[in-house]
Amino acid sequence: NREYDDQGDLIVCKLSDMRRVTIQDFKGKSLISIREYFIKDGKEFPSSRGISLTEDQWSIFKTHVPDIEKAVQKMESRIQ
Amino acid sequence: NREYDDQGDLIVCKLSDMRRVTIQDFKGKSLISIREYFIKDGKEFPSSRGISLTEDQWSIFKTHVPDIEKAVQKMESRIQ
Repeated sequence: NREYDDQGDLIVCKLSDMRRVTIQDFKGKSLISIREYFIKDGKEFPSSRGISLTEDQWSIFKTHVPDIEKAVQKMESRIQ
Repeated sequence: NREYDDQGDLIVCKLSDMRRVTIQDFKGKSLISIREYFIKDGKEFPSSRGISLTEDQWSIFKTHVPDIEKAVQKMESRIQ
């Protein structure tokens, strides 16, 4: 359970073995990344499978978490 | 302000002009995608820049939203 990845970015949480939410300082601004990693030569690297959100985008995202949750629940009840 | 994208997936919110959170039914399971779109021949398509979370991964993610927010605030205070 390391706090930082091999690029020095803060790991906030793991979503699966190789998927992580990290935070990095990019040119004086925070970037919030949700990304899949891969292993090469024993080191972990961020893959292109993922997205890095700006603070503004993160701000919008977090206010919509209840809407996303509601939509997931609705989709679930439709599927079953 | 459309509710569905050109693939028929539900748009829950827009994070920027071309970045969206969508929900789709994939083989009887919900997939929550945070993804950038691009326009080709007047139609919008999901690009490879993004990530699609399973319900389990979404579940983990949403419980960590306060931790992510805390880490962003901490990073901000360190940058300034």
